Amino acid sequence: MTDRKEFRDLASPEAAHEAIASLDLAPGTETVSLAEARGRVLAERLDAALDVPGFDRASVDGYAVRAHDTFGADEADPARLDLVGEVHAGVEPDVTVGDGEAAEISTGAVVPDGADAVVMVERTDTEGDEVLVRTSLAPGDRIMFAGADVAAGERALGPGTEITAREIGLLSALGVAEVPVRGRPTVGIVSTGDELVRPGETLDSDAGQIYDVNSYTVAAGVEAAGGEARLYPHAGDDRAEMERVLREAADECDLVLSSGSTSASAVDVIYRVIEERGDLLLHGVAVKPGKPMLVGTLGGSAYVGLPGYPVSALTIFRTFVAPAIRRAAGVPEPEGATVTGAMAVEERYAEGRLRYMPAGLVEDGDGNTLVYPVDKGSGATTSLVEADGVVAVPPDTEYLAKGETVEVQLFAPDVRAPTVFGVGEDDPALARLLDRVERPRYLGQGSRPGLRRVRDGVADVAVTSAPDDGRVETVELGAWTREWGLVVPSGNPDGVEGLGSLVDDDLRFVNRTTDSGLRTSLSNTLADLADERGVERRDLVEAIDGFDRAVRAHESPARRVLAGKADAGLGLRATADALDAGFVPVGTETVRVLAAPDRADKPGVRRLAAAVADGGDVFDALAGYGTDKA
Amino acid sequence: MTDRKEFRDLASPEAAHEAIASLDLAPGTETVSLAEARGRVLAERLDAALDVPGFDRASVDGYAVRAHDTFGADEADPARLDLVGEVHAGVEPDVTVGDGEAAEISTGAVVPDGADAVVMVERTDTEGDEVLVRTSLAPGDRIMFAGADVAAGERALGPGTEITAREIGLLSALGVAEVPVRGRPTVGIVSTGDELVRPGETLDSDAGQIYDVNSYTVAAGVEAAGGEARLYPHAGDDRAEMERVLREAADECDLVLSSGSTSASAVDVIYRVIEERGDLLLHGVAVKPGKPMLVGTLGGSAYVGLPGYPVSALTIFRTFVAPAIRRAAGVPEPEGATVTGAMAVEERYAEGRLRYMPAGLVEDGDGNTLVYPVDKGSGATTSLVEADGVVAVPPDTEYLAKGETVEVQLFAPDVRAPTVFGVGEDDPALARLLDRVERPRYLGQGSRPGLRRVRDGVADVAVTSAPDDGRVETVELGAWTREWGLVVPSGNPDGVEGLGSLVDDDLRFVNRTTDSGLRTSLSNTLADLADERGVERRDLVEAIDGFDRAVRAHESPARRVLAGKADAGLGLRATADALDAGFVPVGTETVRVLAAPDRADKPGVRRLAAAVADGGDVFDALAGYGTDKA
Repeated sequence: MTDRKEFRDLASPEAAHEAIASLDLAPGTETVSLAEARGRVLAERLDAALDVPGFDRASVDGYAVRAHDTFGADEADPARLDLVGEVHAGVEPDVTVGDGEAAEISTGAVVPDGADAVVMVERTDTEGDEVLVRTSLAPGDRIMFAGADVAAGERALGPGTEITAREIGLLSALGVAEVPVRGRPTVGIVSTGDELVRPGETLDSDAGQIYDVNSYTVAAGVEAAGGEARLYPHAGDDRAEMERVLREAADECDLVLSSGSTSASAVDVIYRVIEERGDLLLHGVAVKPGKPMLVGTLGGSAYVGLPGYPVSALTIFRTFVAPAIRRAAGVPEPEGATVTGAMAVEERYAEGRLRYMPAGLVEDGDGNTLVYPVDKGSGATTSLVEADGVVAVPPDTEYLAKGETVEVQLFAPDVRAPTVFGVGEDDPALARLLDRVERPRYLGQGSRPGLRRVRDGVADVAVTSAPDDGRVETVELGAWTREWGLVVPSGNPDGVEGLGSLVDDDLRFVNRTTDSGLRTSLSNTLADLADERGVERRDLVEAIDGFDRAVRAHESPARRVLAGKADAGLGLRATADALDAGFVPVGTETVRVLAAPDRADKPGVRRLAAAVADGGDVFDALAGYGTDKA
Repeated sequence: MTDRKEFRDLASPEAAHEAIASLDLAPGTETVSLAEARGRVLAERLDAALDVPGFDRASVDGYAVRAHDTFGADEADPARLDLVGEVHAGVEPDVTVGDGEAAEISTGAVVPDGADAVVMVERTDTEGDEVLVRTSLAPGDRIMFAGADVAAGERALGPGTEITAREIGLLSALGVAEVPVRGRPTVGIVSTGDELVRPGETLDSDAGQIYDVNSYTVAAGVEAAGGEARLYPHAGDDRAEMERVLREAADECDLVLSSGSTSASAVDVIYRVIEERGDLLLHGVAVKPGKPMLVGTLGGSAYVGLPGYPVSALTIFRTFVAPAIRRAAGVPEPEGATVTGAMAVEERYAEGRLRYMPAGLVEDGDGNTLVYPVDKGSGATTSLVEADGVVAVPPDTEYLAKGETVEVQLFAPDVRAPTVFGVGEDDPALARLLDRVERPRYLGQGSRPGLRRVRDGVADVAVTSAPDDGRVETVELGAWTREWGLVVPSGNPDGVEGLGSLVDDDLRFVNRTTDSGLRTSLSNTLADLADERGVERRDLVEAIDGFDRAVRAHESPARRVLAGKADAGLGLRATADALDAGFVPVGTETVRVLAAPDRADKPGVRRLAAAVADGGDVFDALAGYGTDKA
């Protein structure tokens, strides 16, 4: 291991912002076509190079005349002029208007030489070759003079202007087809984990491979901030190759990002490359998450090392890196990038450093925004999707009180609270019903967490299959039944007949986790079997090989059975059916959709209730489902 | 002319929304790569097809063990286990952990068969081939089980989900490389004016050609709303060709837009194509602007005809068409698409139909948003750039009071009030100084409109070259001088010597408009000359050919002279210099930057003052400029 520069004290968040601000990310100017200019930022001032309009232009359909010929004319006593020709829009006039003459002219046409006013057709009549003008005109009437809209030499747009539809309008009026815009900073994202595989490639789970989440998440953040992301996947567990990729990224990009690797060797390589080719500006920042953040230079490029946990990587990216990319690209922080809301629950905290708390949004029954901390316990990916943004909690804050107003820095502008937030059973019918609700959020964490989060004032809705114990006050929005039992290999090779077989035969069983309502149904049925047999329920449980081998979602036990890792798994008939597995029925349970009483009238909650009520087609399509309560 | 269906009554705005909503713009589903998925909308539900993680994963660096081997172990009395191997992240374990055994394991590695817990390295020691575990573990400790984060079969993302960084994260965790997204509605924009030319092409101003503004402006609006714009320029004044282009657009696009043409023949062609191949749903809506709006179908496509004035086209597009495109694309109305503010001035209105009033934003000295009507008189392109959005004024509103709160529907989300809003002289030094201020808005309408708009509480700053008459209370932020005179052809072929030559010789002169401070300086100097000669100023004015031939911006007279359309023009030495023209000096005038007293402390106003104070380089670079007051 190379010697590492020592950074004994963690840097302050301000120092980290300054270190990143000191890095030069700004790319040069590039030229894009007008059609590609929207959303870009003008690199330099554009003065008008021509007059708009470029000629004296008729503002109405009518006749081009000499104003002094009409002095004194009115309805009763029109001026009589000789019609000498006509002028159409887009055509050069082939007529000159002399004293006592008029030329027919259409809107937008060039006012012919000699004429100094246009009279609208409504104020005229014709008699043979004569035009009768029934009004008196002043010179310039109904003419838009050349340059009256935009004059050549005028300042049109300044540097730094973001190009939207209206700027496109001005540019096209000036005939500008190529627009000088600020370049997008190029951001290389170096993938550092030996175990990371690109989405779309085959995953070898037995070798502990996982798909690369951070590279793609951060790349999306880079693009949203106005940068151009380039992914540099690294080829296997080879330090020389890793070093080559880092150097290549540093050569090709304005900024290089990597996110925390589980492999110490990757960090060593990064250190070495920074020491040989750049400068380490800081290592470690007094924020949570992000303590291990690295900031430095790599050759002429900037380098920032992000934490490895996806929500943390996105948080540090959003807080420290995205503003620097936006500055370099000249893009302002978007409107709607923050929202304020009241804490839905109390959150204790006492670590003495600035914390970026991942937070979800939910609306109460009155449409007020509530903010709740997203539990890291849910798993990295689930937390990533549940978190709408982060709340910056100052180091000296001991707790955020329930109801306290906080500001959430959103992970993407335009993120909104879901219309309905449910927690509960993982259920295939529910998955389909949720498709009929706009912007729902649902966490399939099981019946108990569902009721708990409704009780805590976080979730709107709990979906439970456990009998209602009445401890949490709710309103039932709807319910259905599902047949459950044992999922076995196709053809039931072990001749499993029911729960008795689990107890009596030498079968490897896979259970669901204790939060699952299905497990409660299993336990209750086992208690009945124990009564029948005159033994303790505990005796039966101990006789089942794998009763404590618990997995989280409705298909998980079945998949273990199909993978040959178990002989029977707790599951639904619908799951066995969908996966072409065998099924031994045990019972039918009722799944209830329960709302917090003060959230029952939220539009999204009502839509979910309607989806359940109208869900006959969904229940019909799934084996073992029905709507007669068990 | 073909017979037209009669629509005697104007349709209500609601009917127009309904007619457009009745058109089917929705494109099919398409598949994009993960890298291109940001900002798109998921077309269908995605359930997880695999477990995340896909294996039982060590959460820390340490040792994989059997938990029951550690029961009762603590600091003082560690469990002693035989070290039997090691497991790295990304590599399949080649070891099995038996009773009394341990395997070294790194974070993220696969927990080897036999082990059911991981102890973190900090709670262990090694002695030779033995691992001393100084804590008691429960089964499952420090292991993230397969599917604990996301389980196969779980609902991952629902249809209609907008894909941001976090959804990219979830998709990559699931290994999804190709994402089914809603197609973007294809919107054909048919250019209909005979006189329209594409930006980048050569303009024949003598033939009354102008660049096509609406097609490009509306195209940018289409893209911003989530559609894909296609431009169909039409080739000249040929009805058959126009008809062919319309039919082609209808065949290729989900929606066809055209914007009001000045040529009646284009409207006739549109009518004929709609009648032959579609259906006219409504013609004319009781809104201002937009009365002539057409809604119909063309073959299988929808058709909407927009007004021709650019701000009106953008208004009708934003109000009626963009929501339909967003709906079809599945994109929600962006946050920040509206702002509220107080009317800066009173606005009278009594037309009895809904009016979309183009409005600009400005902030008062306290940072409150003010809203002012954008004057159509400024010219089509200038209005387009000045208008930040529109205020919907109900038909029964007779006036909007000064201070009344109104809601502005912005033309682009993230549009903000300029940091400083100035109106006044068109001046090349000012154009450069404004480059040093972020997001300024400046209208070069002349000294008088500048003072008037400061007095009205609309503009922050007036830039004048007329002597201060004290009628508007202001604070002077800075000033400079500029030399003015007569711009003549290079070499001064007519031997112009000064204003006297204009009076005495047969010269064609070009003046500036009456709002220009330069014209005031000219008039004052002519008055002096009249005194000298003992005549009336009016006599001199009448002797000048073209004294009333007035153009708007500082370069305009010079350009007329260079184009051979005049022999002398009112202008600046700097302009003559920049355009390589001749120059006959007449005088020096002072340009003053004056702020409304209650706006003088706005940050943008202070930045402008600083830019003037530090503008020495700008004044040095321009001929005839200085900072010693005249």
